[in-house]
This record gives sequence, structure tokens and C-alpha cells, in this order.
Amino acid sequence: MARVYNFSAGPAVLPEEVLKEAAEEMMDYRGSGMSVMEMSHRSKVYDNIIKEAEADLRELMNIPDNYKVLFLQGGASQFFAEVPMNMMKNKKAGYIVTGQWAKKAYQEAKIYGEAVELASSADKTFSYIPDCSDLPITDDMDYVYICENNTIYGTKFKTLPNTKGKDLVSDVSSCFLSEPVDVSKYAVIYGGVQKNVGPAGCVIAIIREDLITDDVLPGTPTMLKWKTQADADSLYNTPPCYTIYICGKVFKWLKKMGGLEKMKELNEQKAKILYDFLDSSELFKGTVAKEDRSLMNVPFVTGNEELDAKFVAEAKAAGFENLKGHRSVGGMRASIYNAMPIEGVKALVEFMKKFEAENK
Amino acid sequence: MARVYNFSAGPAVLPEEVLKEAAEEMMDYRGSGMSVMEMSHRSKVYDNIIKEAEADLRELMNIPDNYKVLFLQGGASQFFAEVPMNMMKNKKAGYIVTGQWAKKAYQEAKIYGEAVELASSADKTFSYIPDCSDLPITDDMDYVYICENNTIYGTKFKTLPNTKGKDLVSDVSSCFLSEPVDVSKYAVIYGGVQKNVGPAGCVIAIIREDLITDDVLPGTPTMLKWKTQADADSLYNTPPCYTIYICGKVFKWLKKMGGLEKMKELNEQKAKILYDFLDSSELFKGTVAKEDRSLMNVPFVTGNEELDAKFVAEAKAAGFENLKGHRSVGGMRASIYNAMPIEGVKALVEFMKKFEAENK
Repeated sequence: MARVYNFSAGPAVLPEEVLKEAAEEMMDYRGSGMSVMEMSHRSKVYDNIIKEAEADLRELMNIPDNYKVLFLQGGASQFFAEVPMNMMKNKKAGYIVTGQWAKKAYQEAKIYGEAVELASSADKTFSYIPDCSDLPITDDMDYVYICENNTIYGTKFKTLPNTKGKDLVSDVSSCFLSEPVDVSKYAVIYGGVQKNVGPAGCVIAIIREDLITDDVLPGTPTMLKWKTQADADSLYNTPPCYTIYICGKVFKWLKKMGGLEKMKELNEQKAKILYDFLDSSELFKGTVAKEDRSLMNVPFVTGNEELDAKFVAEAKAAGFENLKGHRSVGGMRASIYNAMPIEGVKALVEFMKKFEAENK
Repeated sequence: MARVYNFSAGPAVLPEEVLKEAAEEMMDYRGSGMSVMEMSHRSKVYDNIIKEAEADLRELMNIPDNYKVLFLQGGASQFFAEVPMNMMKNKKAGYIVTGQWAKKAYQEAKIYGEAVELASSADKTFSYIPDCSDLPITDDMDYVYICENNTIYGTKFKTLPNTKGKDLVSDVSSCFLSEPVDVSKYAVIYGGVQKNVGPAGCVIAIIREDLITDDVLPGTPTMLKWKTQADADSLYNTPPCYTIYICGKVFKWLKKMGGLEKMKELNEQKAKILYDFLDSSELFKGTVAKEDRSLMNVPFVTGNEELDAKFVAEAKAAGFENLKGHRSVGGMRASIYNAMPIEGVKALVEFMKKFEAENK
């Protein structure tokens, strides 16, 4: 077995020991005589799995008791509709547009009411986070929405926007569990798990309880009403059981690694190695305003498309996978999520140095 | 490793060789250096997986070219809303209510328009399929809806209803791929995969192309619009990649087993063993009208709740898992999906005989 260094933006690298455990438990989960894939979601053994996953997540993120944790389906793209359907009482909300995913959420909200673009960084290909200290937030807005880490463009909100007292909804898909967060500053934190947590097919949403009501927009499907899911502890119908089981294993791994403080430290170390090299390189350069750089997604270019393609091809041949940048940015992108070992980042930088020497 | 005989109604037993292969490929899928869980859904290697899954399904079910195959999320419960959202142009549809899932679909449709109960078997705890040869279908109905196999009650439509020319929508969650079907008789065939196909977290929908349009009800989320998913070949956003990969393996297994004609033969053999015993037993009896019996879900009772509980407990101790009936029917239920080997059914009947002898 030769594992590669996988810099995919998502679905993405998972901790090796999580995969090993999953393989070992595939035919017989801890004496149950069956795979977790084969278990009734109403069985005691599965109930333990989902309850333990939630408890571990609560511990890792220090989630206050007045927040519900929901395991949902449909990806962030489906949640884009769930936010207005469940929260747009006044049919008005503010969106900060810092990339394609924020923009899609903003456009989806327009189906349901007045979505106001409070700020945008579209003028410079979303390469920075706009000033959010004094946004045109009005009293009748139901919430303010951000995408906290922008996977495609490699930016991150280092401080949360001043929402002027309005509820903050944050899509954290690509920075989920990468560092500690103060959950109480948010109304809703949610993310697809397929970047920094587990396999594709589950959204985890952490929602302040007072937002979970029967008062949703007319026409909201039963399954998209948060109260349906909250009242049933995410078991209104069959949840994505196996995906949740793998997420639970990742939570255990994170606890063993030392929790989110420690992950932040490690993620900062990893990102520093790559950014320091980009800042010193004469061939490669980062594409993002330094103060807004993501710890998770690091886009870079040579400035020459042919050379970019050559780099991606040679890197792939050397065992560095999925370094091609998103089609809307071009160049390269290294996603260095929690499960990317520091050795992978060091090896990548060594490879970049060699490539630079050979291609100057 | 001691595998049990798992009679769960879903998530349910999967073919052992599928699980073994998945375990073997966990750390390194065919030289890719990564798990399928870690792969970008836009990568060539994953594209092969999803394309091959669709091709194999098309071959197995002999799906005509004018039908799209979609891999979706949210379970059948979410699809209950998608049907009216995408099909209720006249805001009126007919529902045949043969159990809890049909009833939930019917109630969900009422959010969007006039849902008419065309027939029901609620009068006898859904223990039969009503006569559907001359239903009060009106010209302004957009479609007729059935749940073809009723997991909880153990009934199945042996002939499709006379829809008087209207489009037929069928939830086949618990009989998916259990026998050949003539797809061209349906407008939409769909099911959650977690009963007879794969792990929970994916719905497969087979939809006639003319039904896939931009003309959906106002307020339909982008993700719930079939056209969004069809135009993107189920890759509008990240699909439940690993679940689809396992489904693909099950399709290969079904082909190797001889296809759906052969599965029908095997499923009839298995069901006959169990039903023949129920018909001859003095202790156990089936709960369903004989002519409507499901090949997949076999509910039975002793007529004595204490004895039922004793049976379930002793069966569990002997390695027969998940035989407890649904809370709304009581008693027992043996789900004998494709992946349940005939040996499992024979062993169960032997155990039932022994129990009967001991408890007469």
C-alpha cells in the first residue's frame, strides 16, 4: 500500500488510523456481527455511535447547552435554502459575499426574500476579506450570513463581522474543527463534513435553540424544517449512518491529538511552512491578501499557466495529488486540512524548491 | 469474526463480498493511494466509479434512454416533497395509502396542493393492497403515487394500479432491485438505498426526462429541483460519494449473481420457505393477505405479546438479529433482502420450529 499526499479541497484526506479502524471493523463492528453500514439506525449499538459522536463534538467545540447539534443531508448547498426557510421571518437578510459559496447562498436566499449584499470582495477575485466593522445592516434583517473560510480563494475571516446585534450564520465547511471557536458568538454554525471532518454526505449544523421553531416559511419541506430534525435528534428518518460513524472516529482522533487548541497550533505550523516558502520564492506566489490567508486552503501560482500545468503534473508523478487550483482561480491550491501531516507539507515545499531550481 | 443473520428492515444486510472488498480498498483504492472517502468527486478516478455505477444500474434494470438516473440525498422522506415540487403543475395528485410511508408522502404533498386519497388499506392496519383497477382518478391530476412495497406491513403491489393514463410515481425503497421491473410503466421510480442496495445516505431516482424541467413550484430549493441534479449528472455539489461507491459494488454483485431475473427466483425461494412455514405453523402466523405478501418483508406474530418478546430475545441470543416487528404492528418481522442468504432463512425457520416445539 502506497498512500499519496492528498491535497484535495474536498472530499479530502482523512486520518490514516481512522481509515484503518474502519477497515478492521467493516465485517463485524465490535462483536455486533455486522458492519455499521448494515445496522438499523434505531438499534442500541447505532444509538451509541451517534450519541457518542455528538457528545465528543460538543466537548471538542465546547458547545453550550442551548445549541442543538443536527446531522443532516444535502450538503451546504441544500442548507443555503434551509437558512432562509427557517430564519427569514422578516423576509430580509444580509450576506457578505467573499466567494462562490457565499454567492450561491446569497442567490438562494433571494428565492425566499430580500437578500442584501452587505459587502463583497468580488472586485479582486475574492482575494481578500472586506472590512466588516460597519456594514449597512438594518434593523429588519433576520440575520447576517458569512462563509467563514473560502475554500476556492483561500481566505478566512480572522475576526467575525460586526453584525450590530443581528444573528450570525456561518458556513464553516472548510475550517470546521481546525481551531477553537466561541460558539456563543454565532446563531448557526454549519458545514459539510467532507472537507475537514469525514466522508461526503453529511452536514453538521449547530443551531441556537430559540431559532428552532414551527414558524418556518410556507412550503418548507418537512425534512428541511430544523424542528423536525431537532425533535427527532437527527433520526426523523434514516440518517447517513456510516458517514456519521466515520465523523465520530475523527472526533475521537481530534481528542487524542489534544483537541482544537492543539489542532490550531499544528495548522498554524503547517500553513507557516507553506506561506513562508511562498513569500520567499521567486517562482511561486500566494494569491491572497496576507492578513486574510486561510490556514486550510493555500492557493498559489507561478504566473505562467504552462508552468503551472507542468508543476501539477510533476507533483502528481511524485505523489502529491490534487494540487490543481479551482478552475475559477487557476494555478495551484494545496488544501492542508487537519489530517494532512506536517511531513506532507514539508515534502511539498521541498518538491516546490526543487521544481523552482529546475525551472528558473 | 462471527457474522450474525441480520433481518433488519433497513439499514440492512449487505453482501459479504462487497464489505470485504470495501475493507480491502479502504486505505488505497486500486493504486490511487487514497480511500474512496478521500477522493475529490471531480477526479477521474471517482468519475469512473459513479459512471460505472450508473451504467451497471441501467443494465440491471434495463432503463430506457429517456430516463435519467439521479443519485440524491435526504432519503425518501425528502423526496416526498420533491415529487409535488417538481410535478404538481395542476396542484392536484392522487395517492394510494397502503402504509405509513405512503401516508407520509400523501401528507407532505398536501403542503403543495390538493392530494387526494384514491384508496387506502388503513381499515385493516394496512394488511392488504386495495383494489386499484378503477380508482377515482380525475383528468386534472398530475400523477398517481404509490409505495410499491410496504416495509412495515409486509405488503406489495403485485400488479401496478390502473392510473387511467396518468403518470405513476413509485417509492420502491424496500423492493429496489429485488426483481425485474418494466421501467417504462413508471414516470418516476425512486428509493432510499439503505434497504436493498447500500448504506444509508443516498436516494436513487429514475425519472422520465420530460418531467425534468425548470417549471417547478415557486420556492423549490435549487437542490430539490430535479433539473439541477440532472444537468449536473448528480454532481451539482458533492454527492454521497462513498455510499454511491458501495451501491456500485452491489450492482456488480447483482450482475455476477445473474441479474434481477435470478434475484427474483432466489427471493421467491427464500420467501416461500418462510411463508410455507408460517402457513403450517400452529404458533406463528403471517399478518398479511396472502395475495399481497411482500418477498422482502415478512411480518408475523404468535398472538401473544409475551411470547413474541421471548422469541425475539431467544432468536437474538442464537444469532438472528433485528427480528422485532415495527412498533405499529408489533410481533416480529423478518426482512429478507437480496443479501440475505437462503441459509439464513432456512436457519431461521429451523429455529422457529424449535421454539414452537418448546413453547406449545
